[in-house]
Amino acid sequence: MRNTFFKSTQFQTLRHLIRWTAITVPIAFVIGCMITLFLWLLNLAINYRFAHQWILYFLPLAGIGIYFSYKWWGGRAAGGNNLIMDEIHNPGGGVPRAMAPLILITTVVTQLFGGSVGREGTAVQIGGSISQMFSKWFGLSPEDNRVILTAGIAAGFGAVFGTPLTGAIFAMEVLTIGRIQYTALIPCLVAAIVGDVTVLSWGVHHETYHIAIVPQGSNILSVYLPLDITLLGKVIIASIAFGLTSYLFAEAVHGVKTVFNRFVEQKWLIPFLGGLVVITLTLIIGKPDYLGLGVKEPYPGAITISSAFNPGGAHPMSWLWKTIYTTLTLGTGFKGGEVTPLFYIGSTLGNTLSTLMNAPVSLFAALGFIAVFAGATNTPLASTIMGIELFGSEYALFFAVACFTAYLFSGESGIYSSQRIAVPKI
Amino acid sequence: MRNTFFKSTQFQTLRHLIRWTAITVPIAFVIGCMITLFLWLLNLAINYRFAHQWILYFLPLAGIGIYFSYKWWGGRAAGGNNLIMDEIHNPGGGVPRAMAPLILITTVVTQLFGGSVGREGTAVQIGGSISQMFSKWFGLSPEDNRVILTAGIAAGFGAVFGTPLTGAIFAMEVLTIGRIQYTALIPCLVAAIVGDVTVLSWGVHHETYHIAIVPQGSNILSVYLPLDITLLGKVIIASIAFGLTSYLFAEAVHGVKTVFNRFVEQKWLIPFLGGLVVITLTLIIGKPDYLGLGVKEPYPGAITISSAFNPGGAHPMSWLWKTIYTTLTLGTGFKGGEVTPLFYIGSTLGNTLSTLMNAPVSLFAALGFIAVFAGATNTPLASTIMGIELFGSEYALFFAVACFTAYLFSGESGIYSSQRIAVPKI
Repeated sequence: MRNTFFKSTQFQTLRHLIRWTAITVPIAFVIGCMITLFLWLLNLAINYRFAHQWILYFLPLAGIGIYFSYKWWGGRAAGGNNLIMDEIHNPGGGVPRAMAPLILITTVVTQLFGGSVGREGTAVQIGGSISQMFSKWFGLSPEDNRVILTAGIAAGFGAVFGTPLTGAIFAMEVLTIGRIQYTALIPCLVAAIVGDVTVLSWGVHHETYHIAIVPQGSNILSVYLPLDITLLGKVIIASIAFGLTSYLFAEAVHGVKTVFNRFVEQKWLIPFLGGLVVITLTLIIGKPDYLGLGVKEPYPGAITISSAFNPGGAHPMSWLWKTIYTTLTLGTGFKGGEVTPLFYIGSTLGNTLSTLMNAPVSLFAALGFIAVFAGATNTPLASTIMGIELFGSEYALFFAVACFTAYLFSGESGIYSSQRIAVPKI
Repeated sequence: MRNTFFKSTQFQTLRHLIRWTAITVPIAFVIGCMITLFLWLLNLAINYRFAHQWILYFLPLAGIGIYFSYKWWGGRAAGGNNLIMDEIHNPGGGVPRAMAPLILITTVVTQLFGGSVGREGTAVQIGGSISQMFSKWFGLSPEDNRVILTAGIAAGFGAVFGTPLTGAIFAMEVLTIGRIQYTALIPCLVAAIVGDVTVLSWGVHHETYHIAIVPQGSNILSVYLPLDITLLGKVIIASIAFGLTSYLFAEAVHGVKTVFNRFVEQKWLIPFLGGLVVITLTLIIGKPDYLGLGVKEPYPGAITISSAFNPGGAHPMSWLWKTIYTTLTLGTGFKGGEVTPLFYIGSTLGNTLSTLMNAPVSLFAALGFIAVFAGATNTPLASTIMGIELFGSEYALFFAVACFTAYLFSGESGIYSSQRIAVPKI
């Protein structure tokens, strides 16, 4: 009887649960601490830049510094998110330990000097690098190493945005296009929760956004239909635009990289030139709105992600400017993530489209926020969940429609070249 | 230039979107109408039984009627949900047209005479059967037929419970254990929305449930931690119990079927005997609470799914009684779904566990509601989304923890024998 119990599936499951929890908790705790440090430094850097706007003129030099940091100490760490995905798909040399400190410092430097980059790439790389380190200490098997790398992505993503469920789903969804596999289910969920709780325990507050009440539209059908069919139509049209924007963004990042690499012989010159172009653009448009993260406002009335949730809170070209700034910054070798700029691009585009289509502003800003992200990363389910975690469940159906539509229209590539295609989109 | 546009991925995607919307909308509309008819008849049947409690004594005869209906007119329709899944995995003879009317009528008959069955199986079979019919009329290819059958599941499920997003995810998740593939993404989403909107347009109201405000627990760690770690621990322990209950349920349905088939020569006697046992049990416990759907109360103060959300709203053995009633009813050949009884079993067990563990009643009833369903159907993501669609997003993280834990602990089988295993649970 006792023997049967220990051999039962249920006991094995319990063992599995306890084992992975024990492995994951310390790793995710350390990741959470490092993400806290990252967010804290980022905040300092952003505030410093706001107080000393001239610092932007040193962006080209910062770019050279980042270039040589990776050249001297980076090695394979330059592979970034793609290296981690490759290691999960096809275990090779592992994720280098230097990745976490390097990406952390270079992202903060990029932000300090005004580069337009995000946080998720950094968080994912911190997560991947730290879990690889622990995995070696714990002597995990190659198979378990893949699981813990996936959990590291979940912890990093969940912690940096304060969206643990999204982090867990994102880690499982991002690896392959068109499929989610539950291979690393429990480690991902545990890691994302512990990572998030750690960051919150350190007293970090995440940004909050709010969707204003959407007035029930009235048209000839609304007497019969419980769903505002006109609004749904507008959501679908906007989401096609969101998807095409994701496509544009991904193509532009790759394009900038290709063009600069083809025409510039001295590779260290590339980030220098990238920095110069960003400075020139900023002098032309005469305001710093599209520099940096885009979350806090550099001056009252600047265009930020938050402002895009209000009527008049974005310029009709904001989304395009942010796309140009970000693809230039990332494509010329500065470091950081893509996702916060994608949120910015999406919510400002949503703002603009809502004016064009006479639709609720904050709802469309929220839809753009998640849908451009969904299209560029090919993670429609994680993006839908993110919408629910950030904005509540009332518009969950619109979130899903927006994310899945944008996913369909963003083409087969996306920003992560190491994603594999499991199921073609159409 | 024009040619390039028509050959572009984006144009192909638009074509795909329009084509599948055009195919899906009429199908999902008809499914929605049939689900409305089903819900309306169900309501009549339940009210009639409440007013004429003696009708229970004819349950054994009703069972014989159902047996011969399927024997004479059913053919392969007796395969039920499993037949539809088989047709998606491995296209064969198609889903018979007789399935929809047969399952609709026999489910209503089962409910009229007090059998403890649910609605989702009926809804899924109506969805599958009607989409198969349209698929033949439209001359769809075998590949497209699989897609439209999946969309039929989504429409049926989304419409019958008023949870369109859950319907779409459920249809994609239920086919294989441990994996979601986005093969039928757009058709599923469109079908589920149209099915749901159709039912609502006919004026059907779904049950609503409410989670009371959960008081922030306080323990030695709560000064430092933003998450109530004690509560999370209780949720995990309860969810293991939910998963084991799913396991028990699935085993019991199969067990009842096997035992009756082994010992009873005359197959038409099986539902007759099943009905007799149900009558005997009801006479022993002296109340009709565990008969029927379990949603509306047969008398004031009866135990229902709703009552389980309130303190004292369930007997400590309610979950076990409902398990016995339902597995007996379904295992001896009565017709209907499993899911509403699973909701009942889960929420009453959640109620009981909350008392044992000094945890918030309505939260645990909600967790049981979705987690026992998650475990028995092996659809943890759809169940999490259902929690969000029914109860809001505030406890989304607990929903995910509960559903994924129950999923892990429910064993490899589940109630659908035609599910394939893509990724082993541990």
